[in-house]
Amino acid sequence: MKIVIAPDSFKGSVSAMDAAAAIDKGIKNAFPHAETVLMPVADGGEGTLETLIAATNGRKEHVKVTGPLGKEVDAHFGILGDKNTCVIEMAVASGLNLIKESERDPMLTTTYGTGELIKVALDQGYRNFVIAIGGSATNDGGVGMLQALGMEFKDKAGNEIGFGGGELRKIHHISIEQFDQRIKDSMFLIASDVENPLVGEKGASYVFGPQKGATTEMLETLDQNLLHYANLVENITGVRIHDMPGAGAAGGIGGAFLAFFPTDMKRGIEVVLENAKFAEALNGSDLVITGEGKVDFQTAYGKSPMGVAQAAQKKNVPTIILAGSVGDNIQNLFQYGVVGIFSIINQPMTLEKAMVEAERLLETSATQICRTYFWNEKLDEFSI
Amino acid sequence: MKIVIAPDSFKGSVSAMDAAAAIDKGIKNAFPHAETVLMPVADGGEGTLETLIAATNGRKEHVKVTGPLGKEVDAHFGILGDKNTCVIEMAVASGLNLIKESERDPMLTTTYGTGELIKVALDQGYRNFVIAIGGSATNDGGVGMLQALGMEFKDKAGNEIGFGGGELRKIHHISIEQFDQRIKDSMFLIASDVENPLVGEKGASYVFGPQKGATTEMLETLDQNLLHYANLVENITGVRIHDMPGAGAAGGIGGAFLAFFPTDMKRGIEVVLENAKFAEALNGSDLVITGEGKVDFQTAYGKSPMGVAQAAQKKNVPTIILAGSVGDNIQNLFQYGVVGIFSIINQPMTLEKAMVEAERLLETSATQICRTYFWNEKLDEFSI
Repeated sequence: MKIVIAPDSFKGSVSAMDAAAAIDKGIKNAFPHAETVLMPVADGGEGTLETLIAATNGRKEHVKVTGPLGKEVDAHFGILGDKNTCVIEMAVASGLNLIKESERDPMLTTTYGTGELIKVALDQGYRNFVIAIGGSATNDGGVGMLQALGMEFKDKAGNEIGFGGGELRKIHHISIEQFDQRIKDSMFLIASDVENPLVGEKGASYVFGPQKGATTEMLETLDQNLLHYANLVENITGVRIHDMPGAGAAGGIGGAFLAFFPTDMKRGIEVVLENAKFAEALNGSDLVITGEGKVDFQTAYGKSPMGVAQAAQKKNVPTIILAGSVGDNIQNLFQYGVVGIFSIINQPMTLEKAMVEAERLLETSATQICRTYFWNEKLDEFSI
Repeated sequence: MKIVIAPDSFKGSVSAMDAAAAIDKGIKNAFPHAETVLMPVADGGEGTLETLIAATNGRKEHVKVTGPLGKEVDAHFGILGDKNTCVIEMAVASGLNLIKESERDPMLTTTYGTGELIKVALDQGYRNFVIAIGGSATNDGGVGMLQALGMEFKDKAGNEIGFGGGELRKIHHISIEQFDQRIKDSMFLIASDVENPLVGEKGASYVFGPQKGATTEMLETLDQNLLHYANLVENITGVRIHDMPGAGAAGGIGGAFLAFFPTDMKRGIEVVLENAKFAEALNGSDLVITGEGKVDFQTAYGKSPMGVAQAAQKKNVPTIILAGSVGDNIQNLFQYGVVGIFSIINQPMTLEKAMVEAERLLETSATQICRTYFWNEKLDEFSI
């Protein structure tokens, strides 16, 4: 019997790695001799780097970079187990989690540190990149990142503009002459579930600005600034990123990648599964167990458990989903070869208690579910 | 595919009948063509009568009797689907639920109404009885019941004693001359999980008196009174009920049955399964689903789900248990052919909410569990 264990994190409670370990324990309680493959997953947001390192037995490279508000921060990037792929998680250098809630201000925050991470990785010889862009604190259209990589953004007086989405309206001329030449020889796979355009009502500023600290007054300025920037980018590249799906991701850094980088953009879970070599792990498997803190009807629109199930289905391996909270109308997941969807909650309890006890609950759920799923074919392998 | 659905009630929330119906709905959501047998169960306590009537398609007979404090109450007994077996639930005539909490007083409460129910049933020709003795308000050693059936308990002055456990010390002479002759031609199957003796520290008074309203001072009196009564019973019958297991059930009415009635005493769930013809329903079944409000390590010591699983195991049918609350250390249930034990709770919630939503939760749990259990063998019969 072979089971692939591929949960996402249970947010605020258990990391994907720890969730996988707990499920593994539960399976082994029922079937001590089961073959299990622990393959924690992530959706491209925070934790993607850690998860991919864990899943591929990779490593971290620590670098000091410029934080979202210009102060130095301890950041890192990841080198996957293939020793060839570099994973950069934008949140580590330019993330909301690096600043206090009172400091959030997308007029000021920059993606410069993310560009520095890419530069150090290029210096170390890496040309194959996975970029996870969830959790950013920025709305600068990726200008900070481009600056760190040598691109120049001059104001009318010929001076380089400062950091933040508030500075973009000052751009008079973009010079790509000093832009890092190694980028065109590289490949950047962008993990993003965001399909928003760069500007307008559904653009980066209006949709994601508020959660980054933008006031209502700021939103129009930020959007106008991105529009000004996009017009200039179109002038020099011929690429019109204004309405391009995904250009609005992470405060518009999506647009910078689409305009200036050899780029492919995919859903976070797909990027993770591809790089973790999930398809190979499925070979010869009887079952996949995935999960996430919350599963509801939205899960079928591209969240991790759905991505896992869909990939497993391609190899005819059925999937069972575990969650802390299971919502209504989850039948739409059954089309992806999902056997059953179970809450790990074992009695009435508060969310707080469920979060504290999540690992124990994952373990006992996995035991019960594996007994039930395998009862008819593997009874002789049961330990209890 | 044939599934027997045999839950107990989820106390304070859903009756056994409604629980069975909800589970049935959940199964049919997954397998519209599944053959299901709805066989709600009970443990011999309150609800046993209703459950047995539902399970056997029986009927109720309404009778006015003397309540636990002497006032008339609307009571009933049941006639099972075999039209031959009469079910009497003591709680209906002499139960705690018939009096206010402030009125609880085992010095005064009588089992007279229970005796009246038996008398009416005898008058109607019934000779085969199931007696469910849970939930009694009494500690009178069954003397009230015996009085209703013609036995005489005289004080020194030759007057019949009054109602309640407080009167027993007055008994000077027991006369069985007028005791209903039809009883010796009948059979009384007592459903009781209580193995306590009649008297002493582990007897009826000390163990169950407090929950019936006995103060600490009353307990010694009640126990001494039962001892006096037991001595007199031994004198006239030769049967020593003092230390007999089960004699202490329901305020000592167990002792009255054991001394004066053709009696067999069995665990409540066994009596229910036997009378509901559970073993026959199991023929050709693939699975049994049972359940109860709370399942924990104590469940394996004779509670309904354990009784159901044990009976199913004898016919090689595996059992899945559903519960509102699943405790720790439940592995001891696996020895009875239990596949898995699942909570119906699908997210962190209060007990109150879980109780209100129990039917919906039972339904969705049953769907997920059936999909999981039958996935490998019955995939072609899945509806979704």
